[in-house]
Amino acid sequence: MNKEFLLGEICNAIQKVRTENPLVPSITNAVTMDFVANAQLALGARAAVVYYADEAECLSKSVKSFYVNMGTMHPVFEKNIPEACRIFHEKNLNWVLDPVACGLGNLRTKLLFEIKDYKPQIVRGNASEIISLASLWNFTDESAEKTSGVDSSCDTICAKKSAECIARFTGGSVSVSGKIDFVTDGSVSVFLAGGSPLMTRVTGFGCSLGGVMASFASVSSPLVASLAGSAVYKAAGKIAMEKSLGPSSFKSNFLDILYSFDGDELLASDIELSHL
Amino acid sequence: MNKEFLLGEICNAIQKVRTENPLVPSITNAVTMDFVANAQLALGARAAVVYYADEAECLSKSVKSFYVNMGTMHPVFEKNIPEACRIFHEKNLNWVLDPVACGLGNLRTKLLFEIKDYKPQIVRGNASEIISLASLWNFTDESAEKTSGVDSSCDTICAKKSAECIARFTGGSVSVSGKIDFVTDGSVSVFLAGGSPLMTRVTGFGCSLGGVMASFASVSSPLVASLAGSAVYKAAGKIAMEKSLGPSSFKSNFLDILYSFDGDELLASDIELSHL
Amino acid sequence: MNKEFLLGEICNAIQKVRTENPLVPSITNAVTMDFVANAQLALGARAAVVYYADEAECLSKSVKSFYVNMGTMHPVFEKNIPEACRIFHEKNLNWVLDPVACGLGNLRTKLLFEIKDYKPQIVRGNASEIISLASLWNFTDESAEKTSGVDSSCDTICAKKSAECIARFTGGSVSVSGKIDFVTDGSVSVFLAGGSPLMTRVTGFGCSLGGVMASFASVSSPLVASLAGSAVYKAAGKIAMEKSLGPSSFKSNFLDILYSFDGDELLASDIELSHL
Repeated sequence: MNKEFLLGEICNAIQKVRTENPLVPSITNAVTMDFVANAQLALGARAAVVYYADEAECLSKSVKSFYVNMGTMHPVFEKNIPEACRIFHEKNLNWVLDPVACGLGNLRTKLLFEIKDYKPQIVRGNASEIISLASLWNFTDESAEKTSGVDSSCDTICAKKSAECIARFTGGSVSVSGKIDFVTDGSVSVFLAGGSPLMTRVTGFGCSLGGVMASFASVSSPLVASLAGSAVYKAAGKIAMEKSLGPSSFKSNFLDILYSFDGDELLASDIELSHL
Repeated sequence: MNKEFLLGEICNAIQKVRTENPLVPSITNAVTMDFVANAQLALGARAAVVYYADEAECLSKSVKSFYVNMGTMHPVFEKNIPEACRIFHEKNLNWVLDPVACGLGNLRTKLLFEIKDYKPQIVRGNASEIISLASLWNFTDESAEKTSGVDSSCDTICAKKSAECIARFTGGSVSVSGKIDFVTDGSVSVFLAGGSPLMTRVTGFGCSLGGVMASFASVSSPLVASLAGSAVYKAAGKIAMEKSLGPSSFKSNFLDILYSFDGDELLASDIELSHL
Repeated sequence: MNKEFLLGEICNAIQKVRTENPLVPSITNAVTMDFVANAQLALGARAAVVYYADEAECLSKSVKSFYVNMGTMHPVFEKNIPEACRIFHEKNLNWVLDPVACGLGNLRTKLLFEIKDYKPQIVRGNASEIISLASLWNFTDESAEKTSGVDSSCDTICAKKSAECIARFTGGSVSVSGKIDFVTDGSVSVFLAGGSPLMTRVTGFGCSLGGVMASFASVSSPLVASLAGSAVYKAAGKIAMEKSLGPSSFKSNFLDILYSFDGDELLASDIELSHL
């Protein structure tokens, strides 16, 4: 599984989403749902956002992947998220979990614990979210890992062990987003460099990346879908930055680039994929 | 009611919204409320979004139209949407219904059935939503029409009978959005061509069109308001496409064009209005 | 406290937010949360949106300010907003209240009454909202002030008395937004001119200004934070207008300008600060 092979798989996933226009529904947070939907649409997928498990069940009959984002916790999620995730698991959907703000608040903690056994095939978060989730799921000692890592401004690398534990449990892949992204299925591990500091000055780059991974997960394996999402974001972010005067023009250029992204940008932008 | 007459009425509606700045409140879905409000504001209307029927009632004392969009169903809507729609009906408001995802989920189906007798003066949706609504309201046999139409990638034309049935029942107009828009009040029928394929690569063009129709419905008849909405979107979409590199710059250019839209664009953009 | 002193304080606040990157959480309305977060991020703060009081409590342990916006009332706010505001008061946070649509609906009225004693350190609204809030809090006779002011298209000046009453009660500052902004702590009063009429053609300029004031309130006093927010918005709005074709490019240019705003724009844009 060398770099050329992975790039080929990523380009296949990009082309498939553009030609097959898969419907990729979400249960997702209120702040960034517009960005999630527009990133999916720009790449050629179709978007839908629901709150009710019966709607998710109905949609799950005709889709191959689903996106669940735990931001902006709300009473409607209390019964509906576990019920929906149970259905995704039963139907073997490639569902993506974004454990936003893992560790904050009672409802989020309860729900993230309840859905553990429905094994999301992709988990995407920043380093502290992945570390916190691995601890909540009893795979690692959060405090131990935290103090052993770069800590406070925790690099993706300090979530490596947590990510691998989660991936081995789910049988899917885990993606840690940061200055350098880290993607693993528990055995293969890839680092992706590129992107732009402006990605942290706009809300929703992380959330929309989760939605984009879910889009790729409807046409490829969890590992390839995670890599495709990160690679496209790292390359498009790098290209968009060169054209932009600030965060708002950056976001707009980024979405325009997603729309015409055909894979060549992965080379042109000189993003780096490196095996562990 | 020839083309010149309709264009004159449409231009009147555009000017009135810009000079009278009507308040046009919405009960609308979470993903696209920003786009709905910004499209209304760009054209000169004032926007407000509420969830509670008592707030809708209070606002309905000083407005002439209201927008109700059924996307992202949520428990708060269960009692509030029927109660609000009942008030709009009693007060003879030109209220607009957007039956997003009609047929998906128990709550949406229940609510769309409950509000039937409050007769929205404009119904706007894509072909499958209009067909599904006509069936839910027992005007047509959904499966019969579906199989007789172009089906899967259902053209607006296949919702013609459904749209006419709904319009005759409500006494208002029905607008079917698609590559070509179809607007009818049950007797007059108009097709509108133009727009851009990029409209399907950004979330909320349909929802915001509903909000724009509600804006025009506060200064004109339901038929003219529907036509004005579709005509402005078809023209502005066509113009915006020529300046845009992708979906995000397209959306931005589109809203900028709405802001300065004065009706001349309807001719310049060569949109087509054709009677049935 | 002359103009040069105030400008120096404002520039300090801008630099501190950019270098310290404070986390500034919000309980805020559904329509504009994206804009609130992106304005905060553009200036260098970090954003988070929550609905639950237990999440607000957890966050309040590591933050110095919080933003509460009363738009789009929803059942989840009924218990959570008063509980959260009580916590902010106990912890002496510089919390900002945006009493959007004060006077509309039962829940909003109930909540605004309940949180009175938790004394927001900044209150920001348009003239009618500030007048309505002062009346609800029994400081003034709303009807009396309304008829004595410019009324219908009520200028900020007609909310002067209401603003001063609220500021004296809370011990913080009150900001009245309009064509000319008015900021007072009950003794010092400042008017700020500038901005653009396009600010009323995009949803969320008011809401995001509240979130920006909360950002500045984590590094400065309520009075300076209010002034910094208004001054930055008046200057950036004026500059953005010159580059923009309509409301959408205006919003994008505005956010880009916030990102690189360093204080010099306060002079270059010729905004006016005048003491009463």
